[in-house]
Amino acid sequence: MPPGKALIGQSGGPTSVINQSLVGLIEGCRAADPIRGVLGAVHGIAGILEDRLIDLGRESTETLEGVAVTPCAALRSVRKKPTREECERVLAAFQRHEVRAFFYIGGNDSAETAHILNELALEQAYDVRLFHVPKTIDNDLCVTDHCPGYGSAARFVGSAFMGDNQDNRSLPGIKIDIVMGRHAGWLTAASVLARQHDDDGPHLVYVPERIFDLDAFLGDVDRVYTRHGRCLVAASEGIHLADGKPLIESTETDSHGNVQLSGSGALGDFLAAEIKARLGSNLRVRADTFGYLQRSFAGYASPVDAREAREVGRAAARMATAGELAHGSVIIEREEGEEYRSRVGVTALENVAQHTRTLDEEYLLGDNDIAPAFLDYVAPLAGEMPRTARLSDFPLGG
Amino acid sequence: MPPGKALIGQSGGPTSVINQSLVGLIEGCRAADPIRGVLGAVHGIAGILEDRLIDLGRESTETLEGVAVTPCAALRSVRKKPTREECERVLAAFQRHEVRAFFYIGGNDSAETAHILNELALEQAYDVRLFHVPKTIDNDLCVTDHCPGYGSAARFVGSAFMGDNQDNRSLPGIKIDIVMGRHAGWLTAASVLARQHDDDGPHLVYVPERIFDLDAFLGDVDRVYTRHGRCLVAASEGIHLADGKPLIESTETDSHGNVQLSGSGALGDFLAAEIKARLGSNLRVRADTFGYLQRSFAGYASPVDAREAREVGRAAARMATAGELAHGSVIIEREEGEEYRSRVGVTALENVAQHTRTLDEEYLLGDNDIAPAFLDYVAPLAGEMPRTARLSDFPLGG
Repeated sequence: MPPGKALIGQSGGPTSVINQSLVGLIEGCRAADPIRGVLGAVHGIAGILEDRLIDLGRESTETLEGVAVTPCAALRSVRKKPTREECERVLAAFQRHEVRAFFYIGGNDSAETAHILNELALEQAYDVRLFHVPKTIDNDLCVTDHCPGYGSAARFVGSAFMGDNQDNRSLPGIKIDIVMGRHAGWLTAASVLARQHDDDGPHLVYVPERIFDLDAFLGDVDRVYTRHGRCLVAASEGIHLADGKPLIESTETDSHGNVQLSGSGALGDFLAAEIKARLGSNLRVRADTFGYLQRSFAGYASPVDAREAREVGRAAARMATAGELAHGSVIIEREEGEEYRSRVGVTALENVAQHTRTLDEEYLLGDNDIAPAFLDYVAPLAGEMPRTARLSDFPLGG
Repeated sequence: MPPGKALIGQSGGPTSVINQSLVGLIEGCRAADPIRGVLGAVHGIAGILEDRLIDLGRESTETLEGVAVTPCAALRSVRKKPTREECERVLAAFQRHEVRAFFYIGGNDSAETAHILNELALEQAYDVRLFHVPKTIDNDLCVTDHCPGYGSAARFVGSAFMGDNQDNRSLPGIKIDIVMGRHAGWLTAASVLARQHDDDGPHLVYVPERIFDLDAFLGDVDRVYTRHGRCLVAASEGIHLADGKPLIESTETDSHGNVQLSGSGALGDFLAAEIKARLGSNLRVRADTFGYLQRSFAGYASPVDAREAREVGRAAARMATAGELAHGSVIIEREEGEEYRSRVGVTALENVAQHTRTLDEEYLLGDNDIAPAFLDYVAPLAGEMPRTARLSDFPLGG
């Protein structure tokens, strides 16, 4: 790359480890010869358009290490799909600030933004490296084995279900927990990390990859409740009917056209009300919607996830400055072998932009459960989980 | 006490450390000379009535240590206020099984049950030790400085707000988080553990100790949002209007007459809808209801809380068998001094039964905030919290 500045932005919903990638990028850019300064865009693409840029090169190691373990976007984030005219203004800002490498940390919407900027830069023959650095708790990016941010969210969801399974066993009833994920069930599937004993919940798992049928759901709940005297349900916020419509309608969308599903307890409350109406009003039915805690809870990140998030940032800086590639999306590849190992790679921006990777078919079990193979996939990403134990329930006089 | 068996039950909503008290009791009872066996009642008082008793004396140390770190009631819990006739049947069960010491781990409802049983035992001249062992995330028991279970819940709530404050800073908007607590604001107040920088949320804290006024609330939110460009609100599920009525009506009650407030997102959704209706429909407003995770999340207990919960169990066994007291409720006293230290004590059952300790007046600041003194109270109980850091936002060309 020609000598110049690096610019970093963060975009989309936060994760627990998105700042690890930011700090990895800053480290990598500082160490790279052609880079003559590291800038940050406050609130991503919006900050570039408003010229809200800050100097990241002057941050102390102490501050950066503190930022790295702080959840959510230290640069602050944005949900914005730039128009063609806005992309042209972004390119102009790159030229004005002598930016020769732009790194956008985000999901598939951010990859799309990087892709559009790259096409425009090629048209205008402006030489700039454009890299997408992946993050999403949804784990729904293509090509990569998994996404930084997912392991920590999976760890949170697994621990939440582990506790709630004990809660449901203490005070039996029907409990529904709504997990983030509008199109992909990866995070909801992580609820099975909670299972340690034969009858541990979640007993039923519903993901957007399957059509949700209310009658079938009520039948499932009734069957589990009859068998175990209790029932713990995991359901994605994005579960939908056969016509693709969500169970609960919302009219709020962002500029990418994504419908607001989080930040409301409506879906869980609706399912709980249906159970009471159809299976018995005297049943003890509760619903919790895990909400933003899944992506932002402080102090409970997965160590593997934190390490990998840092490494994808460092790797992106290396790739951009090594001169082999002008643009791309960083991916994580899982190595073969018993013990979990990963390495960082890269793919073309268009392979990631706008695409969504849903839960692999092999990880689904029927319409309401997750296959055992999924545990091999998710366990190393979430890191070591708490262990639970039960009393032996020895009879008297034994 | 006369030689005989000990019987242990767990009651009410679970906590992360209620099993520490159970294991402390088992340890203490096993070591006490007059105790000739340790029984457990499955589902508390209901298990005694149904003769669902198990032998706790045969559990291995390995199992007990595993149980101790497992959240929620390993003996399984119950929400049941026994009638007079049922109390007589419980006494009969004590006699049948030669129970000379009964320990009920629970909140003020459980203290009331122990108190009623004690009165009846005195009437019938049946010699039995009756002890209440405190647990509640609500921290609303009288006499004791704080309740086992509260520190871990406070830790969870503090970390949740710490993350959500970063989330709210990343993607600004108005965010409402509903915290458990129907009559007392202790747990909601713990949200202030999240504040580390000047403009950190929660910016507004609403507890049941104050009358909730919807117009004042909307004015508060508007003012904070205008000032900071964002607003993070902590509100107890039990906030209520001047006439004492909750904002959201529910018809479901337990046999103690407690109204169901948890397990629904209705209050948060209502407040979010009011903000959009009155302050602007284009505002980004979200609500999360933390729900059962506050009392059951696995792997994130406060170490101090876990240690104290264990110790109140051990102490109850000591008190019951030492011969000085026939009945009582175990309390925790905070010692004077810079460094946090506590010791275990005891008070009469009637001082705890049915009473509710609301948040001390000195910990309240106006109608919508918590006084700094409260941090000194809660911080040692929650244990060391995660640290967050921010970028310095250095200007360009500095």
